[in-house]
Amino acid sequence: MSKFLLDKYKDLVPYTPGEQPKDQQYIKLNTNESSFSPCEAVMKAIENEVPTLKLYSDPECKKLRCKLAEIYNVNENEIMIGSGSDELLNYVIMAFAKELVFPDITYGFYKVFADVNKVPYTTIPLEEDFTIDVAKYVAPGKMIVIANPNAPTGIALSLEKVEQIIKNNPTSIVMIDEAYVDFGGESAVPLVKKYSNLVVTQTFSKSRFMAGARLGFVIANEELIKDLNTLRYSISPYNVNSMTLAAGIATLENEDYTKSKCLEIIKNREYLSKSLKNIGFDVIPSSTNFIFAKTDKIEGEKLYLALKEKGILVRHFKLERIKDYVRITIGVKENMDALVKAIKEII
Amino acid sequence: MSKFLLDKYKDLVPYTPGEQPKDQQYIKLNTNESSFSPCEAVMKAIENEVPTLKLYSDPECKKLRCKLAEIYNVNENEIMIGSGSDELLNYVIMAFAKELVFPDITYGFYKVFADVNKVPYTTIPLEEDFTIDVAKYVAPGKMIVIANPNAPTGIALSLEKVEQIIKNNPTSIVMIDEAYVDFGGESAVPLVKKYSNLVVTQTFSKSRFMAGARLGFVIANEELIKDLNTLRYSISPYNVNSMTLAAGIATLENEDYTKSKCLEIIKNREYLSKSLKNIGFDVIPSSTNFIFAKTDKIEGEKLYLALKEKGILVRHFKLERIKDYVRITIGVKENMDALVKAIKEII
Repeated sequence: MSKFLLDKYKDLVPYTPGEQPKDQQYIKLNTNESSFSPCEAVMKAIENEVPTLKLYSDPECKKLRCKLAEIYNVNENEIMIGSGSDELLNYVIMAFAKELVFPDITYGFYKVFADVNKVPYTTIPLEEDFTIDVAKYVAPGKMIVIANPNAPTGIALSLEKVEQIIKNNPTSIVMIDEAYVDFGGESAVPLVKKYSNLVVTQTFSKSRFMAGARLGFVIANEELIKDLNTLRYSISPYNVNSMTLAAGIATLENEDYTKSKCLEIIKNREYLSKSLKNIGFDVIPSSTNFIFAKTDKIEGEKLYLALKEKGILVRHFKLERIKDYVRITIGVKENMDALVKAIKEII
Repeated sequence: MSKFLLDKYKDLVPYTPGEQPKDQQYIKLNTNESSFSPCEAVMKAIENEVPTLKLYSDPECKKLRCKLAEIYNVNENEIMIGSGSDELLNYVIMAFAKELVFPDITYGFYKVFADVNKVPYTTIPLEEDFTIDVAKYVAPGKMIVIANPNAPTGIALSLEKVEQIIKNNPTSIVMIDEAYVDFGGESAVPLVKKYSNLVVTQTFSKSRFMAGARLGFVIANEELIKDLNTLRYSISPYNVNSMTLAAGIATLENEDYTKSKCLEIIKNREYLSKSLKNIGFDVIPSSTNFIFAKTDKIEGEKLYLALKEKGILVRHFKLERIKDYVRITIGVKENMDALVKAIKEII
């Protein structure tokens, strides 16, 4: 640490992204990327942008917002675009949070966003079975953040229950992080018209094959979006590059492709769940593109390390309540078979 | 503004990017983009990334940092990559600034970065001829920001004078924003090894034809870069997408192309300066890809509006000291001719 770093950041512990080791080729099942690549039209759309790369990208991201508005049945002014949803989650917390409340087991970045913004936070323990008891989420004046479906558990909350949280907290912003919603969750976007305290974030990194292109969006009522834009235009107005904007539009113009690939991932998820159950695993029912599973035959960390040795990366978290588990990204069927084979050899 | 926006942002006035009107085709000479497109190799590099867009981009931006380290003769750990230099300027101010000092006439974003980070700032008036008197920049414990060459004046400060500021302020971070350095300035990068209080930012938006791809970098000593990474990994670790990273590397592998195009822009700049002087303009000697010029035949704002009417966009600033001027981006020769012809018709 340099002597110049401001005191307020001296204890800041940044987020640790999933490992991307370069020492060998791995079967990568650790960062919840899609197992499929973008469709042909995306390639074409990107190619078309290259000759005009010398010009700034559109800071308003107008065309992409219009396309999203059409698909999600909202107004284009109810949308802001970001370079992945991380950037957007941070803007929302920066703009609106005096204090944060979120589950004890959820996306590990929320507490880092709280720390970097100097916002205190409280965690509410998930129930024994890792579900959320919505009655516990009453936090006047604090921002509530719910990943739905949750990570790393994979469990979805019904729209009815999400609405209950929003309704119970009229003086709080409720932010629903829907990174995994397309694999079996119910989106809260239709509630944006009804509640002025709701913010929904989504990403193109999981169900839309574009983790490397960095694209996400927020949907909320127009006033909140205006506030978020005030911050964005004060930090990084051209936050999304023109190739990614074009790729996003092309992806949205091919929703059939997206949907069919999501269905295939869901099919592979059920296949993997069944295969793991057959060899004695506890598998939490997942509404995402990953599963969270444990076995009493081997500790979570040991399984993670043994799989890494065999060239397969999964994710393990040291947090006490979930240390027995590993989180496995759903890949193509042959990778799922390779994983099960490796696990059988290990246990 | 919503009732949820934190009080501290209620008076925040965001940066206004140069206009990008869509009502007709303009000759765009208002946002200092390059007049040339990336070379063929950049297209190829981007194409190669599309099949793996499903995977996250490298948060360490390792390959690009190594290539930059080679070119700028620094260590790769003395570099951090950003989504354009705006994002990076903000990180530097966020990490290190208790107070800011910068010239009264310079890049308009600095005061916005100060405001969004709740950092007070002082401006130091440029001399009568818009040059910087380095003796006036002694500000213990405050961060000093110098755009070199400066915008919108286009005037460069010699490396000797830059070093004097750095030397006179050992307890202050001195940030040199070198967005335009490749058009005739002297970079302070060689001083990074010598001074631990120096931060240099550069961008691929001006001399490297990639404004739409969003790419910039910071060079500073390793300790400062570590601090900046602590913040980046707490907000947006995957801040640069993989297509842009690949395009950046391909651009750096073709420095001859970059240099030859910069020379052509410099040639066009001298051509335009001479043409404008011939019709009675005062033109400030420029070390950038734009010129700052005025004439007593028409007010700056009127000239800007009259040119817009004729389909040519230049930039005008309402600030008292520079309201007589217009800032004109250097374009290809035929656009320079079209501009001069239009001005002749107007005056």
